[in-house]
This record gives sequence, C-alpha cells and structure tokens, in this order.
Amino acid sequence: MAEHRARVSVDFEPVGRRAEVPTGTTILAAAGSVGVELASACGGQGTCGRCRVRIVSGAVTAPSDSERRQLSTAELAAGARLACQTAAAADVRIEIPPESLMTAQRLQLEGLQLEVELDPPVVARDVNLTPPARDDLRADATRLLEALAPDAPRIGLPVLAELPEALRAHGWAARIAIHRPANEIVAVAPNGSRLLGLAVDLGTTKLAAYLLDLETGETLARAGAMNPQIAYGEDVMSRIAHANTGPSARAALQDLVVEALNRLASELCNEIDRDPTAIVDCVVVGNTAMHHLFAGLPVRQLGEAPYVAACSGALEVHAADVGLRLATGATLYLPPLIAGFVGADHTAMLVATGVVETGKTVLALDIGTNTEISLAFGGRLWTCSTASGPAFEGAHISNGMRAAPGAIERVHYGDGHFHVQTVDSRPPVGLCGSGILDAVAEALSAGIIDARGRLISSHPLVASENGDAACVLVPAAETGHSHDIVFTRADVGEIQLAKGAIRAGTELLLAAAEIEVEALDAVIVAGAFGTYLDLRSAIRVGLLPHLPQDRFRQVGNAAGTGARQLLVSVPGRGAAARLAGRAQYIELTTHPAFADRFVEAMRFR
Amino acid sequence: MAEHRARVSVDFEPVGRRAEVPTGTTILAAAGSVGVELASACGGQGTCGRCRVRIVSGAVTAPSDSERRQLSTAELAAGARLACQTAAAADVRIEIPPESLMTAQRLQLEGLQLEVELDPPVVARDVNLTPPARDDLRADATRLLEALAPDAPRIGLPVLAELPEALRAHGWAARIAIHRPANEIVAVAPNGSRLLGLAVDLGTTKLAAYLLDLETGETLARAGAMNPQIAYGEDVMSRIAHANTGPSARAALQDLVVEALNRLASELCNEIDRDPTAIVDCVVVGNTAMHHLFAGLPVRQLGEAPYVAACSGALEVHAADVGLRLATGATLYLPPLIAGFVGADHTAMLVATGVVETGKTVLALDIGTNTEISLAFGGRLWTCSTASGPAFEGAHISNGMRAAPGAIERVHYGDGHFHVQTVDSRPPVGLCGSGILDAVAEALSAGIIDARGRLISSHPLVASENGDAACVLVPAAETGHSHDIVFTRADVGEIQLAKGAIRAGTELLLAAAEIEVEALDAVIVAGAFGTYLDLRSAIRVGLLPHLPQDRFRQVGNAAGTGARQLLVSVPGRGAAARLAGRAQYIELTTHPAFADRFVEAMRFR
Repeated sequence: MAEHRARVSVDFEPVGRRAEVPTGTTILAAAGSVGVELASACGGQGTCGRCRVRIVSGAVTAPSDSERRQLSTAELAAGARLACQTAAAADVRIEIPPESLMTAQRLQLEGLQLEVELDPPVVARDVNLTPPARDDLRADATRLLEALAPDAPRIGLPVLAELPEALRAHGWAARIAIHRPANEIVAVAPNGSRLLGLAVDLGTTKLAAYLLDLETGETLARAGAMNPQIAYGEDVMSRIAHANTGPSARAALQDLVVEALNRLASELCNEIDRDPTAIVDCVVVGNTAMHHLFAGLPVRQLGEAPYVAACSGALEVHAADVGLRLATGATLYLPPLIAGFVGADHTAMLVATGVVETGKTVLALDIGTNTEISLAFGGRLWTCSTASGPAFEGAHISNGMRAAPGAIERVHYGDGHFHVQTVDSRPPVGLCGSGILDAVAEALSAGIIDARGRLISSHPLVASENGDAACVLVPAAETGHSHDIVFTRADVGEIQLAKGAIRAGTELLLAAAEIEVEALDAVIVAGAFGTYLDLRSAIRVGLLPHLPQDRFRQVGNAAGTGARQLLVSVPGRGAAARLAGRAQYIELTTHPAFADRFVEAMRFR
Repeated sequence: MAEHRARVSVDFEPVGRRAEVPTGTTILAAAGSVGVELASACGGQGTCGRCRVRIVSGAVTAPSDSERRQLSTAELAAGARLACQTAAAADVRIEIPPESLMTAQRLQLEGLQLEVELDPPVVARDVNLTPPARDDLRADATRLLEALAPDAPRIGLPVLAELPEALRAHGWAARIAIHRPANEIVAVAPNGSRLLGLAVDLGTTKLAAYLLDLETGETLARAGAMNPQIAYGEDVMSRIAHANTGPSARAALQDLVVEALNRLASELCNEIDRDPTAIVDCVVVGNTAMHHLFAGLPVRQLGEAPYVAACSGALEVHAADVGLRLATGATLYLPPLIAGFVGADHTAMLVATGVVETGKTVLALDIGTNTEISLAFGGRLWTCSTASGPAFEGAHISNGMRAAPGAIERVHYGDGHFHVQTVDSRPPVGLCGSGILDAVAEALSAGIIDARGRLISSHPLVASENGDAACVLVPAAETGHSHDIVFTRADVGEIQLAKGAIRAGTELLLAAAEIEVEALDAVIVAGAFGTYLDLRSAIRVGLLPHLPQDRFRQVGNAAGTGARQLLVSVPGRGAAARLAGRAQYIELTTHPAFADRFVEAMRFR
C-alpha cells in the first residue's frame, strides 16, 4: 500500500496540462505523469540545470542547495526553480520555458536516401516437413536440416530449444530465417511471415531506430529517443568515468541503452502490428565508447592513454547476448571501428556516402563534440578525430541552447542590426549551433570581430557584460526578457577552438595525402549540426575549406543511413571491413605539426 | 531473526553422531546438519520411503498420512518411521538401518582404462605481446589476433569483455586456450597455467565427474554425486512428466543438475588447488532425457508417441550457455544421440570400447532401467533400446535394495541352503541386483524354479508368504530380524521381464544383421550392474547369450570413460559422429517379431 498523502494539482503552462499528484511529488515527476517531458540530463540529480521552470503561483518546497548554486538570487526571486528539486506543497501553476521542453527537440531521423543493392545477410527459406511417425523417428533438428540440405545450417541452443514447439505450432510448415554468412538458423517463423530488421544509430545524446523489411529494404517505421545514459554524463568521457567506478556501473549503463532499444523495437513493431520477435537481424552503429558500453566491453583502456579499443573488428553476435529481446536467435552486427576515437558510426557514414568506393577525392566530416574526418584519395583513406567541443550543440555558449523551439538558428546582419530566425518561429530564447556560427560569421563580415576573435568595443552593438565584451543579437526590449540575447568574446573563443580543431585536422589529412584543398571533388558534411549549418557561414569562419558551394553535400544522419544499408547488404559489410582495414589513422594529439596548425587555424582570415 | 524455539538433541546410531536442533526439526534435516546423509529419492516429500529409520527412544511427532501408507502398523509399532516426516519433540535416539545411509552407497567411477591418442580440441598457445603505445594503437583484440596469425581465431563477446583486463593483469604474456575445431579463443590464462577439462557421466541416478589435464590426458581427480533431479522422480519418464508441467519446472530440473555439476567442478578443482575457471572444455554424456534436460531442450516430444528427440547431432556450445561456471568461453560438447531412447551415453560407451573401429563382430549392452544394445558387424551398426525395468537396481523386488552395505551381492546354493555374500560383509539386509540374479540362477539350477519361473512349492525352502510363493534365502533366525530375507514368484517374474526384454532385443539385432549368436567375437557388458553381475548367472538365466566366458568384457562405466576420451580426442569426436550417423535404430515396440520373441525369451531353458 502506498503511503496516504493529500493530493494537489499542478498546472503546466503553456502546454495546458494538469497533474493530480500527492504532495511532495517533484514538479519533474508531476510533469512526467501527464506526458510533459522536461529536459533532464542528470537524471533528476539537480546538477544539469536543464529542467528549469517558473513557479507562477502556489506553494512549493524551499530551494535546495543545488538550486541555490545554479540559480541566482534574482532568478529565484523571479520564481525560477529546477523541476527535479522542487515539490508542490499545494496547488501550483508552473510555466515551462521552451528550452526546458524535451519533446520539442529535433531528432535526426532522415539522413540520406537509402540506395543499396538488396542482399541481406538474413534470408528466408520456407520448408514443408513431414511430421515424425513410427517409421520416421528423425530428431526435429535432423528433419529440418535435411530439408535445408545441402547447405544444412547450424542451429544454436536457444533456437533449438524452441524448435520442437515452433514446428508443431506451425504445422510443420515454417519460414526459416537463415544468417547466410554464419550459415546459422536465427528464427523459425510461420510460413509467409515477413522478416524484419532493426537499424540503430546509437548516439551519445540521441538514439535513432529504423525498422526495415529485410526482403524489400523498405523502412517501415522510424523512431527516436534520448540516450538514457545521459543521466550519467553528457559526454563520452564522463560515461567512461562512471563505467570505471565498478562492474555494476558498467552493467547499468549497458542495461539503460539496451532497454531503451528494446522499447524502441517494441514501439516500431507496434506501429505495424508486429512483435519484436519478428526482428531477425540488427545493426547498431555508434562511437567507440557507445559501441563498447552497448556490447558490454570494458572502457577503462579507452579512457586512459594511449586510449585503445578492446576490439576494433566487426562484431557479429547474437542480439540476445547483449540483452536485446528480438527473435530468439537474432543476430547483431556492429561495424568495425577505425580507431579509439573513430567509431563504427563513422564507418557507417563512410559506407553510406560511398566515399571510398567512388574513387574520387572526398573529404567527409562528422561534426560533433568530437569531429571525425576522413579523406579518400587514390583508393586510400586517412582518418583523424579532433576534440571540437560542444559549442555547436549550444553548450558552453553564454546564451546557448539545443535546437528547441525559440532557438535562434539563422542570423543575418544588416542595417546595423542582427536579424534572427528561430526554430518554429517562436520568440527567441537563445542560440543553437547554426545560430552562433551565423552570428560569428556575420559579425566577422560586419567588422564587429577581428581576426583574433576580439569584439570591437567601439561598435554600437558591443558592450561589456560582467567584464566580458558582449555583442547584442536581440535586445531585451524586443523579447520582454530581463536580459539581451548576446554572444560574448568567450563564445567567439569557443567557436575558434572548434573550427580551429576541425580545420587543423582537415589540413593534416590533406598534408598526409600530399594534396591541396582544391583537389577535393566533394566535401561531405554529416551529423545534425552539419545538416543545419549555413555553408557560407561555415566557410566564412574557416570551419570548412573555401570551395565552391556545389562541392559540398550536407547528408544529415549518414550513420543511420549506413546502419540501414548494412542491415540489408552483405557486400556493404564487406566494404565496411575493407575500408576500416584500409584506413590510416592520424593521431593528432601527438602529431608534431598539430599544435602550430591548430593555433594558426583558430585565427579568422 | 529466526523464531525462538527450544532445542533438543538427536543421537544417531550406529554412526554415533549427535545433532542439537530446534524442536520441530525433521530427523532428515537433523541428520544432514551433522553430516549424516540419509538416502532420499523424493526430496523429503515422504513418497520414496528411502529414509526409513527406527526411533529407539524419545518423543517424536505422530506418523503422517504418507508414513501410514508406506509403513505397516506392525512396523510403526516397532518404531519404524520416515526421517523426512518425523520431527523430534524432545531428545531422541535414532537407529539408521544400513540401506538408509546414502554415503555408503557405491558410485561407479572406474570404468575402462583410458587409452586414447591425445589430440584435444582445446589447446594452449602462449603469446608475448608488446603493450599499446602512442605509435601502436591497435585494439587489444587486434593485437592478440595478429600475434596468433595466420590462423587468427574468433573471440566471442564474453571472452572479449575480459580480454583487456586479462592481458594487462598477465603483463601482456598470456596462455591462450583455443578450441581448434571452432577456431575460437575460449580463455586467456596466465602464461604456463595448465588447461583443465571436465568429463561427466550424467546418469538418471548418479553423476560421475572427472577432472583431466588436457595436455597429458591424465585424470587428476574424480568425484561422484547423486543426480538431484531424483527428487522429481526416479526414472526418466517421471522427470519428463515433471518437466512438462511448465517452463519453470523444466528450468528447475536443468538448474538442479547444472548446479550439481558446478559443485562437482569446484570440489574437483579444490582437490588440486585450482579454480573451475581453469576448465576450458567439458564433455557431458547422458541418456536422451538427461541430455535434453541438461541442455535446456524441451522433452515433451520425447514423452509422447512417436518419441522423437529435439536434436540428435553432437552439440558443441559454450558451457556458460547452460549455466556452467568454468572458464568464460569454455566449450561444452555433448556427443550425438543415436535415437530417442539411445542416448549420448551409449555413443560414448561405443567410442570407449572401440566397438565400431575394431571391425570385429561385437555385441555391446548397457544394462539399466532401459537397456541399450548395439551390434557391430561388417562395418555396420544396429542399435535398439528395451525397457528392462529397475529390477537390477534392486527396485520392484520384495527384499530389494541398492548395493549398499549389507546388500546380498552373491548367492550360492549348496547343501540344501543358500549361502550369501554381502557388500562390506555386513549382516544381510536385502538383495541388490547381482544378488537377485544369482539367487534366480542358483534356484533354477537347484530345481527350485521351473522354466516358467514358478517356485516349486514342494521344495523345503519355498513357503507361501502373503499369498505369494517365496523362497527363503536367509532365515530371520540368522539375522535377528523380524522376517526372513526371501525372493518371491513376483520377484522371479521381474527378472524374467528384464532378461526377456534384453534377450529379445539381442536376438532381433542378430536377426537384423543376419548372423547367429556364435558369430559374436565379443560381448561387452557396461554399467554398474553389468560390472558386478556374475557372468555364469547371467548366462544361466538367459540374460546374456550362451558363449564362452572369455568372449565377455565387463567394462564398468564405459560411458564415463568415453566422456574422458572425447574430452581429449578430436578423432574420437569424429568417430562418435560417424558411428551415430551409421547406426541403424531398430524400434522394438513396433517390431512385428518383438512380442513373440519377448514372450519366448521370458522362459528359462
């Protein structure tokens, strides 16, 4: 029996939902109870500050220590609170600022068009068996294997354990799912049932999952979710640090993401009235840390110099081995990694974009907190990884935010003012990655920033704020907020660090291949930020090389597309193995020329 | 906190142990608490009657319904009780009859001498790796596999997950255990450590386990235990019936035997100061029901006509897949079955005795509740299984018992009396299998039994007991017991059923091969009873064919010997597959000639 407590109502604005909850329930939990998903990166620990709300009216508990650390006295006085730290003491009314709403956040699902020759590893074979009789006492497995002769496949113990009941339930007529490369039976399904496959892009922040018909290659359903591991840190290094606190911590991180995938698989199958047991093959791509944590591999050696992976080859295992609940013998393919910090997601991106196969000279970048860059030239492949920081995700930026409604995503300077465009055309709240990139590019062109990244204090839009020079993008007067939306000298510095790292990496790859930037036939820009960035701004600040715009391709979630291709393509898996084997990894941190290039590339030109 | 109850003392005679237990503790539990192991086949349910004891003095609880069913009023009056149904109400003194003591029971561990060419599937390879460095960032698995090139083996996920820590713990010098047929790494051990193997004969009643040095083939330790599944029925059909009550029942039966093997593995390794994680390969042989229950395969179709196995081929899986806690990637080999009721134990026996390989004409019998018989002739192999009943285990016999101290194991008739020899020369208590066989054979020769199995009522040793004719073997006067030790007409009938079934099976195999019994070069008799039986008696009653004694070989636990051979012999596993594939199974129950042969073979000649 639950403890008896008085109930109170919690009204959420502007979404217009009401929760009826016992007193003492946190605002975060109350919101969750009526389907209002607040942003939360720390799992309700009060440390990430993402779930900020405003108490409009009613009585709540006193601010906690962590709220006092994260909110100023003025903010607290204005009713600002963290939803996870605050409980309703009576009926309350809560205002949720747009940046605290998680559901509105964009998820990257589209990616490239899927163009691949269908040749899936798992295929169906229909059999019609004669039932056992007194003059035919062959074991069930023998009966099945002889019907599949001459290529009699293997049967693992779990499938074998289900075989007698399945064959009898299906009246001895069954569709056998066979993993051809392993020559192994992965499922015994009723005759005529469609075999499904699951492709997953396992990002540090987000998960994108796709359900495919393995016979047609068609994407039947797609869904996204946050990576629940985010409660243990936003970046891979904090996840690694948490995993290293003990075997149970590592197992818990694995469980979190595996159960999230199980939920996504259920949702996707529900959409088309099927069951996850119809999924016979699965491909998961992710960076090396996500890959290791998902597969249950140790990450200690990934987090300490010289930073090596436990395993870099492709993994082809049973999905059940990591805890996925799909068809009993369903296989799971994890593409090969290229190096410690160039993961299977980059491999998948390279497969999806056909970088290596074309024979052209191509630069491919996957821009994120770490940016992976590959250069294909003359049948060879050079790859590096560079720490570009979270600025392009709106983090470490004064007024930064994720690409939620109200985020400034485009900035144009004209007539002495900045003009902004926001996500969903909502009143501006802060700057997301493409917005800050535009702002810096426009400010450069307008002479508000000099080549070293300093704000020109004589410009009318530049003021000093808390001792740091700041440039006003949206004055408080326009929004009714208590403060201007600005970018500061420090924000420009974050962009300089990011673009300097990416540019230095690019230059060192070109140097390794001994070619000039003009030799590039194409530049592929992948990832969420890469899709939304303005190419002119990226070229203006020096993030991307100065080339005609028609050489660039913004391909979105190419890793997810690659995962889908690998799900239905045996040759694709072969290509992944070849390119991972062929890639020459350039370690930047110990590269003699990196530091100089980096410092030089931080400058604007 | 445990409930507070008064404590009483329970003295056990003749073993001279005292237990101090709370009132209400069963005598069975009290015995167990001081290491006195009473026989119990039903797991303390009060149904098997094996834990019979006598209350010498003191107060105990009143007899339960099941005791009233199993013990006569006279027996109860004399103090007889079932230890599992009786609790001490005050200090008590208990007498344990020899047949109720489990620890004294013989376990079959010896078998044939192990003679096999050493060529184990799992072998060791020592590697010395260079540690990772900034200029050598290969993943741990890549580093290892390149050192093992050109035959780079596979690594499963569980071994991979341990690899980084193992390599670093062993200072990058390791002994790699590789399963050659699968070309897979099963363990990463410190340099120089000995690789161990576990061979198990998984009987319906008993388990026999052997620990081997895989490099030398030497048996380092051996141990036996009861099969704990016996609590759910003594024969395979009652185990199958229990497993069919639901998935959790089947899983519980699997768990019981797997945990028993884990305990045996620990005990064996303890003996030589090693840990079960040093065991890298395991062979388990058993009849089809034991095989299926151990492997987690369904048995429903084994218990219903037409009685087919889920799988009859050899299984080579990971020991962890069934719950064995050995080396992380340790393999488990289950030899092929020959048919629904001719299991992997028979295959192992045929391998151990080299029946097929010799090219000779050999009859091989494994006598038990079911008796499996194979006939090798001209490179071919015929096999059958026949329900010979539990008479040779002392069950279903009036004064029958297992081969515990006091069991009559040899009987000789002379001077108008039977002369008996007992196990451990203890005062006679009852008859075990070899004793009842001798008794019937001697009685036949003495004219006490006629060809149809009837007792000659005019013989001075024959009397009528409870309406059934009985022949006195040991008069009560000689033992001081309240009754004579006898065998009855019904007991002779049980022996007739058993020998009739075995003889009819033998004859039908000979008929299938179109040879006469005299063509047999050798007759191999395996199993515990087969080891202790007197060949003259077996030939006299017609259980074994009438041939010169030097053609017989009593080989003991040949299944266990076969399991050990298969543990260290790749060619042995090949031979097992060949002979199982070659065997022609003769189904007796539907054989047109079986009924007539059986009736005819029940007669004595």
